[in-house]
Amino acid sequence: MSKVRVVIENIAPQVDCGRFPAKRVIGESVAVEADVFADGHDAVAAILLYRHEGSPDWISVPMTPIGNDRWRAAFAVKLLGRYFYTVTAWVDHLESWRHGLQKKADAGVATELDLQQGAVLALSIADRAPETDARSLREWAHAIGDASRDQEERIALAESETLHELASQYPDADIVCEHESPLAVHVDRERARYSTWYEMFPRSAASEAGRRGTFADVEKLLTYVASMGFDVLYLPPIHPIGTTERKGPNNLAGAGQDDPGSPWAIGSGEGGHKAIHRELGTLEDFRHLLAAAGELGIEIALDIAFQTTPDHPYVKEHPEWFLKRPDGTIQFAENPPKQYQDIYPFHFETDSWNPLWNELKSVIDHWIGAGVRIFRIDNPHTKPFAFWEWLITEVQRPHPDVIFLAEAFTRPKVMYRLAKLGFTQSYNYFPWRNTKRELTDYFTELGRAPVCEFFRANLWPNTPDILTEYLQYGGRAAFMVRLVLAATLGASYGIYGPAFELMENRARESGSEEYLDSEKYQVRSWDRERRDSLQELIARVNRIRRDNPALQGDRSLRFHTIDNESLIAYSKCGSSTGNGGERRGAAAHGVSENGADEAAAADCVLVVANLDPHHVQSGWLQLDLASLGIGPQDSFQVHDLLSGARFLWRGPRNYIALDPAHSPAHIFRIRRRMRTERDFDYFM
Amino acid sequence: MSKVRVVIENIAPQVDCGRFPAKRVIGESVAVEADVFADGHDAVAAILLYRHEGSPDWISVPMTPIGNDRWRAAFAVKLLGRYFYTVTAWVDHLESWRHGLQKKADAGVATELDLQQGAVLALSIADRAPETDARSLREWAHAIGDASRDQEERIALAESETLHELASQYPDADIVCEHESPLAVHVDRERARYSTWYEMFPRSAASEAGRRGTFADVEKLLTYVASMGFDVLYLPPIHPIGTTERKGPNNLAGAGQDDPGSPWAIGSGEGGHKAIHRELGTLEDFRHLLAAAGELGIEIALDIAFQTTPDHPYVKEHPEWFLKRPDGTIQFAENPPKQYQDIYPFHFETDSWNPLWNELKSVIDHWIGAGVRIFRIDNPHTKPFAFWEWLITEVQRPHPDVIFLAEAFTRPKVMYRLAKLGFTQSYNYFPWRNTKRELTDYFTELGRAPVCEFFRANLWPNTPDILTEYLQYGGRAAFMVRLVLAATLGASYGIYGPAFELMENRARESGSEEYLDSEKYQVRSWDRERRDSLQELIARVNRIRRDNPALQGDRSLRFHTIDNESLIAYSKCGSSTGNGGERRGAAAHGVSENGADEAAAADCVLVVANLDPHHVQSGWLQLDLASLGIGPQDSFQVHDLLSGARFLWRGPRNYIALDPAHSPAHIFRIRRRMRTERDFDYFM
Repeated sequence: MSKVRVVIENIAPQVDCGRFPAKRVIGESVAVEADVFADGHDAVAAILLYRHEGSPDWISVPMTPIGNDRWRAAFAVKLLGRYFYTVTAWVDHLESWRHGLQKKADAGVATELDLQQGAVLALSIADRAPETDARSLREWAHAIGDASRDQEERIALAESETLHELASQYPDADIVCEHESPLAVHVDRERARYSTWYEMFPRSAASEAGRRGTFADVEKLLTYVASMGFDVLYLPPIHPIGTTERKGPNNLAGAGQDDPGSPWAIGSGEGGHKAIHRELGTLEDFRHLLAAAGELGIEIALDIAFQTTPDHPYVKEHPEWFLKRPDGTIQFAENPPKQYQDIYPFHFETDSWNPLWNELKSVIDHWIGAGVRIFRIDNPHTKPFAFWEWLITEVQRPHPDVIFLAEAFTRPKVMYRLAKLGFTQSYNYFPWRNTKRELTDYFTELGRAPVCEFFRANLWPNTPDILTEYLQYGGRAAFMVRLVLAATLGASYGIYGPAFELMENRARESGSEEYLDSEKYQVRSWDRERRDSLQELIARVNRIRRDNPALQGDRSLRFHTIDNESLIAYSKCGSSTGNGGERRGAAAHGVSENGADEAAAADCVLVVANLDPHHVQSGWLQLDLASLGIGPQDSFQVHDLLSGARFLWRGPRNYIALDPAHSPAHIFRIRRRMRTERDFDYFM
Repeated sequence: MSKVRVVIENIAPQVDCGRFPAKRVIGESVAVEADVFADGHDAVAAILLYRHEGSPDWISVPMTPIGNDRWRAAFAVKLLGRYFYTVTAWVDHLESWRHGLQKKADAGVATELDLQQGAVLALSIADRAPETDARSLREWAHAIGDASRDQEERIALAESETLHELASQYPDADIVCEHESPLAVHVDRERARYSTWYEMFPRSAASEAGRRGTFADVEKLLTYVASMGFDVLYLPPIHPIGTTERKGPNNLAGAGQDDPGSPWAIGSGEGGHKAIHRELGTLEDFRHLLAAAGELGIEIALDIAFQTTPDHPYVKEHPEWFLKRPDGTIQFAENPPKQYQDIYPFHFETDSWNPLWNELKSVIDHWIGAGVRIFRIDNPHTKPFAFWEWLITEVQRPHPDVIFLAEAFTRPKVMYRLAKLGFTQSYNYFPWRNTKRELTDYFTELGRAPVCEFFRANLWPNTPDILTEYLQYGGRAAFMVRLVLAATLGASYGIYGPAFELMENRARESGSEEYLDSEKYQVRSWDRERRDSLQELIARVNRIRRDNPALQGDRSLRFHTIDNESLIAYSKCGSSTGNGGERRGAAAHGVSENGADEAAAADCVLVVANLDPHHVQSGWLQLDLASLGIGPQDSFQVHDLLSGARFLWRGPRNYIALDPAHSPAHIFRIRRRMRTERDFDYFM
């Protein structure tokens, strides 16, 4: 290190000092930045090195200074799995010499000796270069150092960019600084970033009331789901349900003979986590459903809940995986003073943790074998972090296309830890963020580094566990605005249906956020064709998402000022392949090459929503035009993709009024470039 | 790791992922925080471990949760040098059981089995404890598990804090999480944080004009320096000055026979960095000066400038330490197109870097041997970072009381790097931060983590190199306000005198920030007794610093709102031994124990300054009362320590008017507690 004068600091992206990888999806660009500098005034050079885990060879990209000793370069991730990257830098003596020579020449004080110094430097670089390049460097050195030639001409020769680029490939290894250990970025497929989820209970899928639904019934509903634009259909656990201590409707103790029990009460004499509930169908039926869904562009996501009932085969086969109480019985789940006698948690501190881990991983592998690639993990925050990190890493090594969604509505740091250690997407506090301040603060936090580097929010306005007060009391407009917020604040979002589109809003009791007659404990029959269903709105919103790449990522989210606390305004810009935040400016300033009335690169969507589901709210919007790539004097059109209405705006200040009885939100596509006389054929 | 369920994240203080130590001074407390949590709902326990580098034994301190899974504990640093600290945590099953039992007992559902579980847990802990503690734990376990005893009584027994504390000492090693590698804090003596510097040229110290000053003359001026309250007297280089290419007055080429040259042009036939300029005196005289200064509480700081003139003995003895040009001559300093033929920089990329490093370190060791403990390092940013890190570490290992001040007015990241790698104090951009916005932004940045953990600013309103435009054109008021700002924004500050107190404001030319007739190139004679000297103001300000521990640290700095852009207001609170920021609230809320008319712990100073040196400025101050430990309804007195005036205030809003012709600033001591009838003897 002792001749090394360059230092490298503060490389980004970087999660917890490199302990965890950053996340990207395939096709995106990873913009890497670092502070790079040396003592004194010498020029420095820096390169970004990266490689995919499958390749031993590092690829190098020259970095560019972006001010204040910060340097940047980017690389595109084209393969799933892990990439590694690092930064290398050195004092670039030839470049320092070129700078100095130019300044001296400009001041008229360049001397023969100055030129000789350049020649000496070039020759020493040539000694490190392979033959062809060495020859070029030597020729150049001799020309620079040839005192018989014109001095002006030799000074001009020093400016050769080609030779500088050549020379910069052969730094003196003694003075090169390498960053201590490479950092990693984990690359998922696109659906990790942009996905549209629909949750339903298969047993409520029957078209006639009274009959229990099957996989075949779910299959019949696929067109319904596809017509609304969903691409992930998520099913609660499909396994045999225990009978011991089974819960009846509304989670009451003492289920009747016909009560179906909770799908999360996994395991009976018929099998456990690898078995299918007899009433739903066979493995063959399940595979058929997967295939049928696939034809409609829908993937099936399975729920994985690592817990058992007292009837699960594991209890007899592996009693060592459960905690024994002093009387020899197995410890059931508790949250004192509440007790859940129907659920046995695994005891992860067992001495047999290793076989336990392997068995649980084999559950995932089993369903991967059946064709599943997306798993929604139930309560991951009640199992050890180390277990998940191991499991996800080991599963994704051979199957880098597998997606894990963490269902963890728990403490913020626990949720973030789960995301860091590998969960692809995460449930989050969206259900409880309803005011402008709450939404702005929370999504600003999620959108900023380091959180945005590892945490991909999947936004659910409702789930079988959560019927928020906002939805209970807000009526139709509340469902509408929460849908728009979820679908536009989140590149990934989901609804639990048909409860959502049918605006089910009856809670079990006042002050509770649980559904009355929840499908968790009983079979429900739904009239999906009800005229007031939100089906069409959902279909339209999802089509807007599909048509506008800006809504397929979260990194460009930006809030705009609007002078009414019930109105919220935000925009997203950029294409689906970008890094988002980093590319925002460039994308927004892109110029149309096809001369159409809209710049192709100008992919900006502006959402304005009325958070008050009961009253008309109006106010003045103050747009941050620069963030939208719009000049202060430019005219631009905003096109409400929900209503079809178009408005011509100019300047940052614009009036908004939203009537929740009609539509509680605008989803504006911004069309920046207006036709002018310059577009007319005869102009010029 | 596989049974370990706790994770530890984000330990603070932490500089660059632990690459560098944080900094404290002796007697301070290091408040260590970390995110500590486990999966699920079990209780966790965390301890802070620390040790001084001189001791192999870790000392443990239980950590306390402070909300949102953040934990805190503190330790006092009582020895110079390096301390290491880390965090260890585990799932605390006994504590989880206690919590659960209590909740069950409250709900009336606690069972015999619950008590047996506690007994089993306690017995397993006893197996890990040494004999005495094991016996206590077993006795306790038997009592808890004794079914013949009253259940209520046994539940009460479970609450025993003593036994819980005992048990918490013996966690199961299999489930303990240790943070990967210990972090470090470097402990300096108090003057590293709080110091008051005076810079002077010894050769201008003579009492009669025309004679060159000597160490003996400096000695005569010590009472003058001490009377103003300075505790560090910093001398520019005291070595022989080269004659080759010596610069004349005002840095012009071609010095005359009698021109003394720049003290930074080090080295002549008479010696180099270890020699003393013949005209100043002998080593004996220097030691005498040190001793005399010491008696007045003043330390001498020496300037170390690692560069040579062509006449330096190193040039002949170690030509390999300099860069040779193609013609065999030595490369002089350049900043193209400017050339400094009188200065040779060392060539740190020499193959002989190792002997060079050792020789330069021996320079420091030489002066340490002579009794110097403070070094002001000239232009450290033009020598390699690795060199400084090595040098400071190696010097401080045997001499942890040595202080290094970095003179680096260079790019921000370079300045920060130098501080991180070991410089005790740092020059900074204070000279060029003159408006309210500039001062607020800059000192907010310096006061925040991570910067405040490694960067200790030393504020200089002027130096021999810098006569700012503000001082050139602002007149007496400009000098006064910059003095107050430096002395109160910075726990360490310094002035270059007598240019400062005599308000020397003539620049070499318009647009230049260099002094006309700079002492760098010529001997000056000063009338230190001039009636308009700022001597008395300086003495008063430094006395205020000495009397108010709040001004002896920077971590509690907080800006307050005042509705005039020319007025700035800020406060500092806390005692000199605290961590500053962390202790602010506690200190401010401390209650007097002695019943005096002022709470002893309430050490808050409020500064309000008029940044406009030409006009009266007035405005309404909006105090953040909470930060001062003052209730919204409390009356409090503000006592201007500069003018002696006292004002009675109530509430946050108060009027300020400052006339620069009179005094451009208030330095208020806040006396929070007013006498009331309760203080009267007969009350009660």
